[in-house]
Amino acid sequence: MDNFTYHNPTRIHFGRGQIAKVGQELPLNARVLLLAGSGSIKRNGVYDQVRAALGARTVFEFFGVEANPDFDTLMQAVGLSRRERIDWILAVGGGSVLDGAKFVAAAVPFAGDPWDILAKNAEVKKALPVGAVLTLPATGSESNSAAVISRRALKEKLAFLSPLVFPQFSVLDPEATFSLPARQVANGIGDAFCHVIEQYLTYPAGAPLQDRFAESILRVLIEEGPKTLADPRDYDARANLVWAATWALNTAIGMGVPQDWASHMIGHELTALHGIDHARTLAVVLPSLMQVQRAGKREKLLQYADRVWDLREGTEDARIDAAIAATRRFYESLGIATHLSDYGVTADTAAEVARRLDAKGMAKLGERGDITPAVVERILRLAA
Amino acid sequence: MDNFTYHNPTRIHFGRGQIAKVGQELPLNARVLLLAGSGSIKRNGVYDQVRAALGARTVFEFFGVEANPDFDTLMQAVGLSRRERIDWILAVGGGSVLDGAKFVAAAVPFAGDPWDILAKNAEVKKALPVGAVLTLPATGSESNSAAVISRRALKEKLAFLSPLVFPQFSVLDPEATFSLPARQVANGIGDAFCHVIEQYLTYPAGAPLQDRFAESILRVLIEEGPKTLADPRDYDARANLVWAATWALNTAIGMGVPQDWASHMIGHELTALHGIDHARTLAVVLPSLMQVQRAGKREKLLQYADRVWDLREGTEDARIDAAIAATRRFYESLGIATHLSDYGVTADTAAEVARRLDAKGMAKLGERGDITPAVVERILRLAA
Repeated sequence: MDNFTYHNPTRIHFGRGQIAKVGQELPLNARVLLLAGSGSIKRNGVYDQVRAALGARTVFEFFGVEANPDFDTLMQAVGLSRRERIDWILAVGGGSVLDGAKFVAAAVPFAGDPWDILAKNAEVKKALPVGAVLTLPATGSESNSAAVISRRALKEKLAFLSPLVFPQFSVLDPEATFSLPARQVANGIGDAFCHVIEQYLTYPAGAPLQDRFAESILRVLIEEGPKTLADPRDYDARANLVWAATWALNTAIGMGVPQDWASHMIGHELTALHGIDHARTLAVVLPSLMQVQRAGKREKLLQYADRVWDLREGTEDARIDAAIAATRRFYESLGIATHLSDYGVTADTAAEVARRLDAKGMAKLGERGDITPAVVERILRLAA
Repeated sequence: MDNFTYHNPTRIHFGRGQIAKVGQELPLNARVLLLAGSGSIKRNGVYDQVRAALGARTVFEFFGVEANPDFDTLMQAVGLSRRERIDWILAVGGGSVLDGAKFVAAAVPFAGDPWDILAKNAEVKKALPVGAVLTLPATGSESNSAAVISRRALKEKLAFLSPLVFPQFSVLDPEATFSLPARQVANGIGDAFCHVIEQYLTYPAGAPLQDRFAESILRVLIEEGPKTLADPRDYDARANLVWAATWALNTAIGMGVPQDWASHMIGHELTALHGIDHARTLAVVLPSLMQVQRAGKREKLLQYADRVWDLREGTEDARIDAAIAATRRFYESLGIATHLSDYGVTADTAAEVARRLDAKGMAKLGERGDITPAVVERILRLAA
């Protein structure tokens, strides 16, 4: 196990009716920016609960943060925050709204061009405090320090990390997610599943607790995912999905172990180029990446076959084949297609994605740095 | 799953050489009380590393915190801290030293008699910040807000909880534990095992992630425990024990689920009355409690048999018998005897322990409140 520092200071209020806790978390004299998406929170009662919890505080609202939140949209929220001397950001939405809130929180007090936070890894030295009311289980953004921001004008999608943007608190009320369209719930399950795989499916590193925690989350997603899709108002199934998605990316399972974020990096390019939902890009890349990288990931693929899919019969290669097939079947069972052609994209995109990653300095992805542009191309051609 | 609030703000620096991080964590002008036990840290190099990390800071030292830290001892440290205007407590030791540090941190600014924090649940409104360098994996105190304090003069052992005494940081360097006597390592494994059982072995509560995390920790303790006892300098085995013991009681697995702390409550009385090592009291109580409470815990006992011990053959009752026997064998394999008679204690203590718990208002222990004084007596008579 490698050395690590583990720190996750977000206070999580989990369960029915917990949105009221927003009222305890924010100072009474806070000047709040309520950041949200398209307005679905006004139809499902979440907005009313949030406003009731905020009481007489000074609140400005900014709706319209889109999926894959856009830099230009968020800069409007930054402008509003600066003009109105906002001192708290309250995100009410899914991972896109939360990521957007983190960016706004870091950008408001930033001295130069906030694009540098993303494009040049400029250090975030100050940030407004962020709170969150989660309405979509998927990204883990409710309990981590990362954000991914797109800039459609430049066809870019970039990430930044700062301990200053951990939400101070997050409310996770499973009932606030009941009205989500099935497609978004499925995407959330698929995204969380991939987050776990990327911290787990590398090579053995003498870290059995991290391994078993990762396998625990995968099994819960496999068992509870179909239940919550079949009956969106099954409280326990939805609660388990919400909690599993948080743990998939609250950094605990990734401590001291190798990681392979190539699926996300390749996926981001597919979203930037073709507008495919984030989780769907992962479903395309992941089974194919497992196949192309099966030699380097051999021991963990066998462990994954055994402990996650109960595959213990047949040769090692047969078990690995079966585990990769089970992964693909799992995504398809969620209603998520796993081939580029399903999204009207041809294999020609493979070379373009490889070129773009190379141009961004991502020529050595994967836990061993052996996912070169040529390997990226092979993965995407296999995913055609 | 029940509603819950999860918050664990402790920053953990894990691994070789991490004691140096103490130098980053404490303000340069801090007035530090270094709290420690018997002085073993001066023989194994930990003390020298801590002092090097503290550099030129103003440091007072208080050695002599005993196992099951004593109120009267700790009040001497409180007096020293008040006289010297200490503003940081640095615990260097195991769970006893850490628990002691939490009590000192809360007692120094406490207005009345600090005994009230323990005996009357007096609210802790202020506490000095606590940091920790852990030298014994066992209690989880390095990453929780609880402390258990004894008062030998009154034959008492009582606990308190306050979010203000979460360590601000804890250093977990597995190498700092290499020189521990095997008996203490075994006790630590047994203590951590029991912590997990007490948050897990109740009744199903629709919380599969918490269940699987608990099972993960138990399996790691079962697999890595014997390895680290056989070869104390096997870095990975010791690192896995350290990390598993932290997760056994950092509150994550207990979120939203029923809990049964009867083994600890009964065990505390056995320590107070007979001076038996804390972990050894648990080894006496736990298998016997599983047997007496097997009806109420039936579904979880079957799950425990299956997932922790791979027991899937035979009738349900046979599997439960086998799981209880495996639990007893596990403790005995660590060198920890599991009967009262092994400690020179007769069954007569059963009535006395039951009476004492009753007198403290603990007449309804267990996840259903059905461990009455009569049941406590039955458990201890069965453990004779």
